[in-house]
Amino acid sequence: MTETTTAAPPRAYNSFDAECPTRDLLDELSDKWVSLVLVALLDGPQRHSELRRRLNGVSQKMLTQTLRSLERDGTITRTVTAAVPVRVDYALTPLGASLTTVVHAVKVWAEANMDSVALARAEYDARS
Amino acid sequence: MTETTTAAPPRAYNSFDAECPTRDLLDELSDKWVSLVLVALLDGPQRHSELRRRLNGVSQKMLTQTLRSLERDGTITRTVTAAVPVRVDYALTPLGASLTTVVHAVKVWAEANMDSVALARAEYDARS
Repeated sequence: MTETTTAAPPRAYNSFDAECPTRDLLDELSDKWVSLVLVALLDGPQRHSELRRRLNGVSQKMLTQTLRSLERDGTITRTVTAAVPVRVDYALTPLGASLTTVVHAVKVWAEANMDSVALARAEYDARS
Repeated sequence: MTETTTAAPPRAYNSFDAECPTRDLLDELSDKWVSLVLVALLDGPQRHSELRRRLNGVSQKMLTQTLRSLERDGTITRTVTAAVPVRVDYALTPLGASLTTVVHAVKVWAEANMDSVALARAEYDARS
């Protein structure tokens, strides 16, 4: 879409550059709650209360902030259904699904390598 | 190695569980400086001063903390060479190289999708 709405040359983004907008985006995405919300939504659309249970230990405020920021980025949708009480569902967009693929890999890595990391930490602490 | 040192059954790690040690590991790894240090080290071993230049905008203190935490996790090595001044090099371990593969994908995603995210944000802000 940008090809037709702007004459500017394609921008080469690089998060190593402090001024690049991807630096802030990388910072925002580098958050355990972002990872866990996205991965939870891999199972399909979910309500706020379901997400809150799934993300054991997250505060109401942190979950709301995380969801709003993901909605603003276009990675999740928020759908309000008229009911009593009002029902609100969150779901991945195609953009969010592509992000979740890469973010999920970090969670999988942490779970797969926790033992190696714990061993390395014990050895480091014994040396120090 | 753990098979011979403990009789405990293999632990199933799950970062959705607040008590799981992978929750803290995921939190530690979810950091833009961690991502940028690891990706910078893909180019080979580097000195503190080289990393500091590469990670444009990082403070001395933040870089030192990040490097120490990665070293403690066993994902990077710190090698001191006797010289004047003393030379200190950082390099990825095999464990760190495997982590970098997945972390790099998040940076690549941010750079590839910055335009889509910026468009979504502008639309969200116009609606709000």
